Amino acid sequence: MQRYFLDDLYENTDNIKLTGEDFHHAIHVMRMTPGSQCYVSFADEVTVVAELQSVSDDTAFLTEVSKEEMKKELPCQVTIACGYTKGDKLELVAQKGTELGMAELIGFPAQTSVVKWDGKKLAKKEQRLSKICKEAAEQSHRQQQPKVKLLDTFAKLLKLAVSYDKVLVAYEESAKTGEKSAFVEALTTCRPGQRVLVIFGPEGGIAPREIEQLMQRNGTLCGLGPRILRAETAPLYVLAAMSYQWELLG
Amino acid sequence: MQRYFLDDLYENTDNIKLTGEDFHHAIHVMRMTPGSQCYVSFADEVTVVAELQSVSDDTAFLTEVSKEEMKKELPCQVTIACGYTKGDKLELVAQKGTELGMAELIGFPAQTSVVKWDGKKLAKKEQRLSKICKEAAEQSHRQQQPKVKLLDTFAKLLKLAVSYDKVLVAYEESAKTGEKSAFVEALTTCRPGQRVLVIFGPEGGIAPREIEQLMQRNGTLCGLGPRILRAETAPLYVLAAMSYQWELLG
Repeated sequence: MQRYFLDDLYENTDNIKLTGEDFHHAIHVMRMTPGSQCYVSFADEVTVVAELQSVSDDTAFLTEVSKEEMKKELPCQVTIACGYTKGDKLELVAQKGTELGMAELIGFPAQTSVVKWDGKKLAKKEQRLSKICKEAAEQSHRQQQPKVKLLDTFAKLLKLAVSYDKVLVAYEESAKTGEKSAFVEALTTCRPGQRVLVIFGPEGGIAPREIEQLMQRNGTLCGLGPRILRAETAPLYVLAAMSYQWELLG
Repeated sequence: MQRYFLDDLYENTDNIKLTGEDFHHAIHVMRMTPGSQCYVSFADEVTVVAELQSVSDDTAFLTEVSKEEMKKELPCQVTIACGYTKGDKLELVAQKGTELGMAELIGFPAQTSVVKWDGKKLAKKEQRLSKICKEAAEQSHRQQQPKVKLLDTFAKLLKLAVSYDKVLVAYEESAKTGEKSAFVEALTTCRPGQRVLVIFGPEGGIAPREIEQLMQRNGTLCGLGPRILRAETAPLYVLAAMSYQWELLG
């Protein structure tokens, strides 16, 4: 059953409206007619099964049938922050990260980032990545649609970092030396509702000066097992491990 | 430092030879000269640091300098078996699965597989996927190069299944109902050295008749958390969770 994400909070569910692209998708792609049902997820993650009542030229009107009781979101809000990489790797992280439960995707220019994106390019990229996250959220039955923020300086990442409950830094050198307790320690001490920021370097890794600055913001260096993971693979490892630790081992 | 995989067992290390593509890569791409070093992984996973001694027209002669002591392979041999999917999804599983520690990749035609590949096409695909695995194994510092087998019938998968210590079947319906203990149970009861086969359906899932046949071969149905993962994402989730359980939690 199709799923739509609304920016509104859950409130008056006798009056659920789909407009814009969602309207187009529901009526023209899914060909919903009065009586058809879909999921509607609100900004506060409440999700309902809704039934189409009537359709105007640009709005579909639905009412709530029942609530989706099963919890689909990771118990902690996980933000994945990736240094800008070459090619479309960030698109892979957007899609797979959404399937794996990421709450937010941040991109930032790292010292070793080869690509240089200006404001206009960043805005366009941000839009594209948001669309990928939205589609993946619908397909993977999320109750929340990951937000995307593409930063233009590393300093902005440092500024954001202080607002998180935990800051983890995936660090290849930790992996190479066989360090394995920091990541487990971080995951097993997280409490439901906490906000976790996990930072990944681009292909060239995170520079010593950047590591130092992140450490000053309470960053914890984490190794992710003995194999060297590519820049776009490491975030997927982290999210899968979090799901395993928090949702399956519990 | 570059890594090469040899088909020989570790034995006479005063006489390590690189030939064919490895020779070409070492001498013409990496421009190794006498005294240069690289890793050489043997078929039995023994890995050494080796030093180039001399070069003939088609062979590079190396000797062992030291052993790579750190264990880079998952403690269990994990085979990932994917139903044939559309597009190049199997290539993503080959690359990322190798980084994440997969020992072997099997493809099979499932009832819901849309693509139909004949013998010639399968042989070509197998070659391409093997190449992707080899390159990913070198980059991710593996000590073993994953094997690739593309089967032409589901019956062959069933026949192979009986030779594994554990057979797990990723099952979307288990995920939907919130089942979460079977996968944890399977991972925590695996003993080092055991061979584990994990089976994933294509986009359309695994048909009831196929599930039934796998259950008759001691297959265990496993849910992988509450979100619906795409066909190519589920294997990455499983491998990351295995690494977390076996290599980090230990």
